[in-house]
Amino acid sequence: MKPLFERVVIAGVGLIGGSLALAGKKAGIFKTVIGVGRGKANLDKALTLGVVDEATTDLGMAVRGADLFFAAVPVESVIDVCLKAADGMKTGCIITDGGSVKKKIVEELQLRLPSSVRFVGGHPVAGSEKSGAGSADESLFKNRYTILTPTPSTDPQAVDLVRDMWKAAGADVVTMGPDEHDEIMAMISHLPHFAAYALVDAVVKADGSGLMRRFVAGGFKDTTRIASSDPQMWRDIFSMNKERLIESINTFERSLSELKQMVEKNNFDGLKARLDKIRSTRLKMDDHCG
Amino acid sequence: MKPLFERVVIAGVGLIGGSLALAGKKAGIFKTVIGVGRGKANLDKALTLGVVDEATTDLGMAVRGADLFFAAVPVESVIDVCLKAADGMKTGCIITDGGSVKKKIVEELQLRLPSSVRFVGGHPVAGSEKSGAGSADESLFKNRYTILTPTPSTDPQAVDLVRDMWKAAGADVVTMGPDEHDEIMAMISHLPHFAAYALVDAVVKADGSGLMRRFVAGGFKDTTRIASSDPQMWRDIFSMNKERLIESINTFERSLSELKQMVEKNNFDGLKARLDKIRSTRLKMDDHCG
Repeated sequence: MKPLFERVVIAGVGLIGGSLALAGKKAGIFKTVIGVGRGKANLDKALTLGVVDEATTDLGMAVRGADLFFAAVPVESVIDVCLKAADGMKTGCIITDGGSVKKKIVEELQLRLPSSVRFVGGHPVAGSEKSGAGSADESLFKNRYTILTPTPSTDPQAVDLVRDMWKAAGADVVTMGPDEHDEIMAMISHLPHFAAYALVDAVVKADGSGLMRRFVAGGFKDTTRIASSDPQMWRDIFSMNKERLIESINTFERSLSELKQMVEKNNFDGLKARLDKIRSTRLKMDDHCG
Repeated sequence: MKPLFERVVIAGVGLIGGSLALAGKKAGIFKTVIGVGRGKANLDKALTLGVVDEATTDLGMAVRGADLFFAAVPVESVIDVCLKAADGMKTGCIITDGGSVKKKIVEELQLRLPSSVRFVGGHPVAGSEKSGAGSADESLFKNRYTILTPTPSTDPQAVDLVRDMWKAAGADVVTMGPDEHDEIMAMISHLPHFAAYALVDAVVKADGSGLMRRFVAGGFKDTTRIASSDPQMWRDIFSMNKERLIESINTFERSLSELKQMVEKNNFDGLKARLDKIRSTRLKMDDHCG
């Protein structure tokens, strides 16, 4: 494939950034990939493993002459990194990101980036507990969704290029508004994490003697596995998607309270009918990829 | 090993009943195992597979001369089956069960069983989505807890025999009061199921267009896997453990609301500290078996 981008700068050569570097090189859409980061050790590893062609801790140097800048940094740092990077960029350079919250990032960057660069918000819905350049995997995005969140003021040609890039990396690309993205992610990703943390918190509250936790088995472990996710990362996501998260917690509290009332009122036949419907919805979800 | 019981009757030759039959025969603690059930096809299968030595749909016939009766039937049927079985039993016969709710069962049976038989409440904390005689597995209970719930009026020799039986089947046997059992299970098993059902219910509520469910990924799926559990079984468990379940839902709602308030008040540092504590509790749970 003819390179879509000659000079690609990836800030944050971890699971997401490193995997896109590998997938883009493999597909022939990136000519030269420059990794940028603050940790020298990780950058050296990325070079040694061939994840990137060049590596530097100097963001200003890296972006000189770049055609594409991908911010694969923690969600709270995306805005800052993109603003800093834009300083040294040539006219027409495309900026995109992998942040899992979009409205705040897209609004701020559309407002504050110079008009000489073109920003396209993105979110590859892939990830695992792994991190660092050593976890980079060229097939990470295969058959997973990548959501792009252009707005009426986003350059359409830039959207096409970023879409082609993710497609070449194997992703199933979907486009929607930043707020719609955040509403969906609040419900199907941020809320489950929040609920899993709350479930473990409730056990801590109830389990004065420490006896309860001896008996946790498969069901509890599955349900709360994501409560061992990185607290800093989730603090940031919860903070950046505050409004939509609260909305989804409210919806969940309503469901919980409705089901509880059925128990309180001994309406167990009504409860059974509701559980039947829930179960059939849940079973259908197993047919989806992801 | 010398048989602990000569003539063992197991009502419900499914995953739990069938597995105990196999484990007891393997360990040499059961001489003859008679399977009782309502479904002829499942009983035939149990015979063909060698899970039981004899099989019948006639409960009265089966219990004649029995030394042990194990009720491995759905939790709502345990009381009825034990009462019916007791009718034809010889003096001194031991009755035990595998119901996952204990207070209601133990209270009713202590009140209503004839004093000529000896009841010991039990709950093997093992299970999976499988059912039927074909799912019987002699090592199902290995390194899993079985909880016995004797009361001051339970015959101590009967408790010892039932304990020895579960130990021979490989289980780690723990003894506690029926209400303490129900309190623990409400929090670490019944509440997670309830919360998983509510989480899927919330998505149904929020997802008018059906778009959200396209994007569910690993985290959501893990957290709600148990929402595809059998609605009839869980309706029964929620009903039989109503008081303790409501208590655990209330505790969960308190945790949820406290964490939500931190988000609402922008207390993200407080939230991060709380998540750190939750995460470390959750990580320790992975060290437990089960």
